[in-house]
Amino acid sequence: MRLAVIPGDGIGPEVVAEGLKVLRAVAPDVETTPYDLGASRWQRTGELLPEPVLDELRGHDAILLGAIGDPSVPPGILERGLLLRLRFELDHHVNLRPARLFDGVASPLADPGRIDMLCVREGTEGPYVGNGGVLRRDTPQEVATEVSLNTAFGVERVVRYAFERALARPRRHLTLIHKTNVLTHAGSLWSRTVEEVSAEFPEVAVAYQHVDAASMFFVTDPGRFDVLVTDNLFGDIVTDLAAAVTGGIGLAASGNLDASGTNPSMFEPVHGSAPDIAGTGVADPTATVLSVALLLDHLGRGDHARKVDAAVAFDLSTRDPRAPVRTAEVGDRLAALAGG
Amino acid sequence: MRLAVIPGDGIGPEVVAEGLKVLRAVAPDVETTPYDLGASRWQRTGELLPEPVLDELRGHDAILLGAIGDPSVPPGILERGLLLRLRFELDHHVNLRPARLFDGVASPLADPGRIDMLCVREGTEGPYVGNGGVLRRDTPQEVATEVSLNTAFGVERVVRYAFERALARPRRHLTLIHKTNVLTHAGSLWSRTVEEVSAEFPEVAVAYQHVDAASMFFVTDPGRFDVLVTDNLFGDIVTDLAAAVTGGIGLAASGNLDASGTNPSMFEPVHGSAPDIAGTGVADPTATVLSVALLLDHLGRGDHARKVDAAVAFDLSTRDPRAPVRTAEVGDRLAALAGG
Ligand SMILES: CC(C)[C@H](C(=O)O)[C@@H](O)C(=O)O
Ligand SMILES: CC(C)[C@H](C(=O)O)[C@@H](O)C(=O)O
Repeated sequence: MRLAVIPGDGIGPEVVAEGLKVLRAVAPDVETTPYDLGASRWQRTGELLPEPVLDELRGHDAILLGAIGDPSVPPGILERGLLLRLRFELDHHVNLRPARLFDGVASPLADPGRIDMLCVREGTEGPYVGNGGVLRRDTPQEVATEVSLNTAFGVERVVRYAFERALARPRRHLTLIHKTNVLTHAGSLWSRTVEEVSAEFPEVAVAYQHVDAASMFFVTDPGRFDVLVTDNLFGDIVTDLAAAVTGGIGLAASGNLDASGTNPSMFEPVHGSAPDIAGTGVADPTATVLSVALLLDHLGRGDHARKVDAAVAFDLSTRDPRAPVRTAEVGDRLAALAGG
Repeated sequence: MRLAVIPGDGIGPEVVAEGLKVLRAVAPDVETTPYDLGASRWQRTGELLPEPVLDELRGHDAILLGAIGDPSVPPGILERGLLLRLRFELDHHVNLRPARLFDGVASPLADPGRIDMLCVREGTEGPYVGNGGVLRRDTPQEVATEVSLNTAFGVERVVRYAFERALARPRRHLTLIHKTNVLTHAGSLWSRTVEEVSAEFPEVAVAYQHVDAASMFFVTDPGRFDVLVTDNLFGDIVTDLAAAVTGGIGLAASGNLDASGTNPSMFEPVHGSAPDIAGTGVADPTATVLSVALLLDHLGRGDHARKVDAAVAFDLSTRDPRAPVRTAEVGDRLAALAGG
């Protein structure tokens, strides 16, 4: 297994080190190549994602990314120039984000119930395409636009992926989240696609929620969701909500998948670079470790993935919630549990 | 006070009746004219908002709306053709949605703390403008677009309104919610506008949150928010989140304001027509009554508004949360309290 590693900024390198520790405990055959990308490279050289680096990344089986971002960089530079560029160049059309409330983890909800959902967020279209502009900047007549682009090709492949995942789960339930009553053009494409693809998956029950109503249900009744499918922007919001009600982004894993297998998929914790705690050894690496489990599963090593998941589940159920997190200790424990 | 009343569909007429009961208890001089608009008129006549009706509505001091919508009408027809058309034609650029956790109301959060925020959502721009289309419909080459339009004129007036409201509140804090790191064009206009207008309001502290992070804070720390300002689509989502954590849309009031006073403003509960319980007398009219308070405040009758608010606060703090709601009884109690 040839793995490209982008530790990135802030706590990124710290959590990635623990992720690799756990990965090596279950898969000693992994070969890693580190790539220096992120805020500090941009500060030093002005480079975000040089073409030769992108080509090298393409030669790997998968990518593990820590976190990108630093307050010294203006908003949009690293996001558009590096993070989103990776997702778009590598055709990461499935942004996969499981959200499960593990035993022993406190939810901010008074009565969370059982939460175990899988968010399938589109990753290469929608309002994230960067299509838009500014006219008459800095005048009272300024106009700024953002265009959401949605294609049958792009919507169909992510919807089909979501149905496949739903079919493989016990509840076999899929919810489309959109805003079809206002965004009637894109909404119609998404609804029609779900309806069409559903004919091939008669075992999967289908529901629809407007994004505003769905957001409320994340707070009042998250247990109703099994698999979700939604566009890039709505997915950004609802996956953070799903993370919030299952214990926070300290535990939220994600995979950016090219489900066709043409390009390497990329796995990253949902949290950011947390510059305020960088270097202090208190970042929780659990989200990175869970991202490693997604990586293993994606590369056909389901057995290894389940070992890592089980290690996390056991560790969370036995952690003292008041004890401070020590990044390396958590990694050591999880590696021992997963490899043992 | 000349008030146009649009009871609408489902539970709309029931909750509006109670809202008017309370309104009359504090302001006996109100003259009301009912307008039959909504699903049933559309079913009967195909009409949504005939031009002469719109003209008549313009002649009123304000509009009170119950709820619009019925499952028999395809998505988008009533929303775009009636609800949003009213907001756009009457230039309701401020969509005002307070969210306060009243004593005695259960929040779904384990530790809600004190929540008292005022969401100022833009109402006439953004992705709600209906600009977009579908190319090659029902083919594998279909493309669907949605364009978010943002103007300096439109952003500036709602941002200014939000600063004015923030200045009048004890905490004097304003949070801009957007996604400036991805929607860089619109995000830049919103950020620059907030920065510019803030120079005129040195007493107001300003914060910024990406919409995904903000959504998490609604769950983990809603007490941090005082006044919020955001675009039409983000506002749709976060105001429902704000409602969810303060007891649900059964309590969420809203005002669609033309802050310039040129057109009548419109007041409506945030909830929908709830056809499943229509006619059974169990809909909670409290959101409509709180919308009446916003209406009174907007028309310069702050004293009356405070009476209605106080009646609701008292009633909620003494309600038995397990007792079933009876629409007319709640209205009777609130009218007696507010008018007494
Ligand atoms: C950093 C940002 C560009 C990114 C996104 O919006 O997708 C992040 O919020 C995420 O969810 O991975
Ligand atoms: C019904 C719908 C068009 C409307 C909106 O999206 O604005 C509603 O959700 C609201 O928040 O008032």
